[in-house]
Amino acid sequence: MASGEFEKIARLLSLFGSGAGPSVLVGIGDDAAVLARPDAPGLVWTIDAQVEGVHFRAEWLSWEDVGWRSFMAAASDLAAMGSTPWCALSALALPVGFGDEALLALATGQKAAAGAVGAPVVGGNLARAGVVSVTTTLLGTSERAIERRGARPGDGLFVAGPVGLAGAGMRALVAGVMVPAVDAAIAAFRRPVARIADGLAMAKVARAAIDVSDGLSQDAAHVAEASDVCVVLDERALLAHAGDALARAAEAVGADALSLALGGGEDYALVVASADTPPGFTRIGEVRDGEGLVLRSAAGERALDPRGFDHFAG
Amino acid sequence: MASGEFEKIARLLSLFGSGAGPSVLVGIGDDAAVLARPDAPGLVWTIDAQVEGVHFRAEWLSWEDVGWRSFMAAASDLAAMGSTPWCALSALALPVGFGDEALLALATGQKAAAGAVGAPVVGGNLARAGVVSVTTTLLGTSERAIERRGARPGDGLFVAGPVGLAGAGMRALVAGVMVPAVDAAIAAFRRPVARIADGLAMAKVARAAIDVSDGLSQDAAHVAEASDVCVVLDERALLAHAGDALARAAEAVGADALSLALGGGEDYALVVASADTPPGFTRIGEVRDGEGLVLRSAAGERALDPRGFDHFAG
Repeated sequence: MASGEFEKIARLLSLFGSGAGPSVLVGIGDDAAVLARPDAPGLVWTIDAQVEGVHFRAEWLSWEDVGWRSFMAAASDLAAMGSTPWCALSALALPVGFGDEALLALATGQKAAAGAVGAPVVGGNLARAGVVSVTTTLLGTSERAIERRGARPGDGLFVAGPVGLAGAGMRALVAGVMVPAVDAAIAAFRRPVARIADGLAMAKVARAAIDVSDGLSQDAAHVAEASDVCVVLDERALLAHAGDALARAAEAVGADALSLALGGGEDYALVVASADTPPGFTRIGEVRDGEGLVLRSAAGERALDPRGFDHFAG
Repeated sequence: MASGEFEKIARLLSLFGSGAGPSVLVGIGDDAAVLARPDAPGLVWTIDAQVEGVHFRAEWLSWEDVGWRSFMAAASDLAAMGSTPWCALSALALPVGFGDEALLALATGQKAAAGAVGAPVVGGNLARAGVVSVTTTLLGTSERAIERRGARPGDGLFVAGPVGLAGAGMRALVAGVMVPAVDAAIAAFRRPVARIADGLAMAKVARAAIDVSDGLSQDAAHVAEASDVCVVLDERALLAHAGDALARAAEAVGADALSLALGGGEDYALVVASADTPPGFTRIGEVRDGEGLVLRSAAGERALDPRGFDHFAG
């Protein structure tokens, strides 16, 4: 059963609540949300879209997964700036026949993710479209926002969170590989986690930060370019950080663990450049004079082509 | 020619500029925008999506029109709250073959609208999709946010801006009617204007407000429901406000001016309930005890079915 627009909004309101609270004066149900001026000196603001057939396929994910991961993808941008999530708006585009149960599942996933990062959904938009898309905008507060451009020669390069695991999970789903060795990888793909606490921890010391949405090599290259430095990745340290979970999943899907660690996206690990090790982070390389990306292995150093996933590549 | 994702972002950055300024510390080009804490006591926050084939057809509009009106549709929600636009994020979903010239035109329309309302685009997202969609989120500041729910019996009902004209323009485009009598209507459809100044003026006195996106009767009914009152529309006053432009356009497209004034959406007029007339507004009815919507004409009063356009209606 698919209901009309206003019935859908009423159902979402009943699931989410209005979102109103001490800092959210008007939540779901008016022309716009109204927020009280925050106490923090800065605000961080991001938007991210997940489109069916591009970012996900309905056969690989439940609608609850779609809601969860679309919210987390947006929240991860706040983590990457060292921001505390505040609240969110959700713009859903749905086919005419999209059923009420599916909508409830999708919104339940969003609500769970919103609860996990502490940023309630306080408004949004519903539109009709040919395929499902979920666009999430999040506001966070910030004491000190960490940009991509502050890395300096001599900084260490640090990571928190899985690298390559979600990519391995997606390959397992594509290939229909369903063995225990890929369980963690599929979970990483279906239920990625925005690393809010790690983001707050690194914001006290880091000079530059980014989250890994397109793949470690591509996202580290963004830091190198924005900071006008060379980023060196240490293969052994990276693979040690990725650990057995990636090694076993890579073997099960017939892929190379290093390629997955460098090229797999949507893990939402945080990568930072810092003079001091942020608590909870692992050193996987360093920053030096120069430009671009270098991989250091037992065989020596080589320049890395920072290819990630380009949504518009032919 | 269609470029890759990062080339597209570079082109947009070069058109929009980063958007950074005194209150926007980090604009386009990082994981998220960073804003300074505003001076105003409140923030108003909205999101709106325009989807090709649902909200517009490429044969009726230039890409510049699409950029303009998608931005204005979102900005109108701020006008309806009596808010001053601050800045915006734009999430574009584009087919793989969407050309660079079309993208430039779309962004040029967004930039023109952003300039007109004083809210620069300071970030966004690019995604691939089957059809074009433009999702815009805007933040505004606010001294006193006007909700839908404050209307009281005895208030007057006031309007600023065209009603029904954009709907007549859309009918003219659908039917291929291209005569001088529909010029103003087509312009209203292609280049609607968010009534920011009217919104600020009404916010000093109004008790409830809404913008007309779905049609006057439907949006006035939202005010009636949220405020738990009856809203009375006066036919003669409404048609006098709509004026010759609507009368002539309605005749040219073979439609009834009153039906267009009550049911036509996307004009983004502001409708407010207030004890005093807000400057620049016209009285078109009043608020009284009861519920629902009533139309008063020479023949007497009748209840109105607040049908607007339901995107999910079968």
